[in-house]
Amino acid sequence: MRFMTSSDKPDHVSDSPARTGIAAQDWATAAADPQYRAAVVDLLGALAYGELAAFERLAEDAKLAPTLADKAELAKMASAEFHHFERLRDRLTEIGAEPTEAMDPFVAALDGFHRQTAPSDWLEGLVKAYVGDSIASDFYREVAARLDSDTRELVLAVLDDTGHAGFAVEKVRAAIDADPRLGGRLALWARRLMGEALSQSQRVVADRDALSTMLVGGVADGFDLAEVGRMFSRITEAHTKRMSALGLAA
Amino acid sequence: MRFMTSSDKPDHVSDSPARTGIAAQDWATAAADPQYRAAVVDLLGALAYGELAAFERLAEDAKLAPTLADKAELAKMASAEFHHFERLRDRLTEIGAEPTEAMDPFVAALDGFHRQTAPSDWLEGLVKAYVGDSIASDFYREVAARLDSDTRELVLAVLDDTGHAGFAVEKVRAAIDADPRLGGRLALWARRLMGEALSQSQRVVADRDALSTMLVGGVADGFDLAEVGRMFSRITEAHTKRMSALGLAA
Repeated sequence: MRFMTSSDKPDHVSDSPARTGIAAQDWATAAADPQYRAAVVDLLGALAYGELAAFERLAEDAKLAPTLADKAELAKMASAEFHHFERLRDRLTEIGAEPTEAMDPFVAALDGFHRQTAPSDWLEGLVKAYVGDSIASDFYREVAARLDSDTRELVLAVLDDTGHAGFAVEKVRAAIDADPRLGGRLALWARRLMGEALSQSQRVVADRDALSTMLVGGVADGFDLAEVGRMFSRITEAHTKRMSALGLAA
Repeated sequence: MRFMTSSDKPDHVSDSPARTGIAAQDWATAAADPQYRAAVVDLLGALAYGELAAFERLAEDAKLAPTLADKAELAKMASAEFHHFERLRDRLTEIGAEPTEAMDPFVAALDGFHRQTAPSDWLEGLVKAYVGDSIASDFYREVAARLDSDTRELVLAVLDDTGHAGFAVEKVRAAIDADPRLGGRLALWARRLMGEALSQSQRVVADRDALSTMLVGGVADGFDLAEVGRMFSRITEAHTKRMSALGLAA
């Protein structure tokens, strides 16, 4: 995942070195708790399928590129997602999970998201790549703080900014400058992307107890739907700020 | 490009270390001849767009995969093609050519090939990946012997066998074993692929004089259509042998 710059980072996420609870443990220690282990397998499965689905969509969107150089740029983003997928899949194997089984529960939600948000042109594809990646980055960072040190390191590595944000932002801004009416259409599109992402995420939260419980502050504290709601608000707020910066009223 | 094993290698291709003419020169020396330089820019442009188009088609075909593991395997092949594209594009830049301009003359033929041969199911996609890659490998090897040492090294590196042949061959064989009637349909499909590849190649040969002249034995010797025909026969023969080995009468 890419596109995240330090100024985009949700305010509440702390990189403080003084970690407590599971965040202070390594995988071997943390995984002794079977509920934590199940949550991490879920998380890695969701991220792995997310990367594989992103690969497919970016490769598909590359067909909409107006020039060969643009096509190559989207193909490069797709290939980067594929390499993230490989790391996540290999980690699942390493911790004794079957990657396909781990990914299966998330196929319907992610395929649903992509089916509902197939871009109709090149600019919609770029906005989707930017928005999708930013939301995913926010989510990775939200969750990283709650993970054991080994899993956290992998999740943050997969989040690495490969500098593609600049490409999408620059192209979208230039297009809106050239034809300001595009702004309205793309703003609507970005809202639809966010709405669909939230709706599919809520589906996953409702289905996967262990994962959801971990997302809201550790398996020991029980499931708190209100905290999941707050996490979604933080991600939505960060999205709104990014859209304004892009010249799109979200 | 992949899939080539030593036993598939057309008999006439010699890896003899005693090279003469352009094959004994490095790029700096050989490129002093403007016709040779133009031919290499054409060749690298054709290969680069070929890899980019192959990336797109494999990524597209990954959607037809019956399992997540199969999907990942095709995505991996696509990603490997993309990295080949990057090397070829970077080399074009290095020798002072504009990659997009170098690729442009080959877009119509390669897009035409892929449009005419969109697989209708997973097995057709696998046969296409195998056949397409094998033909491309044969072509790379044909041409490598006629190149300066620096260009030859790049072309052979991009040809590297990443071991995907085994995957495609194994899946297709198992499917035919399970349902022998598939053999007839897939044999017909492989014939159509070869026919379309030849027809598009002939279009390129007719259009690109410098490239065609180099392909048939060096720019000094003039253009010889009969020799191009012989090259196509050698590639067709190698294809026929591979199809028999796969259980498909070609």
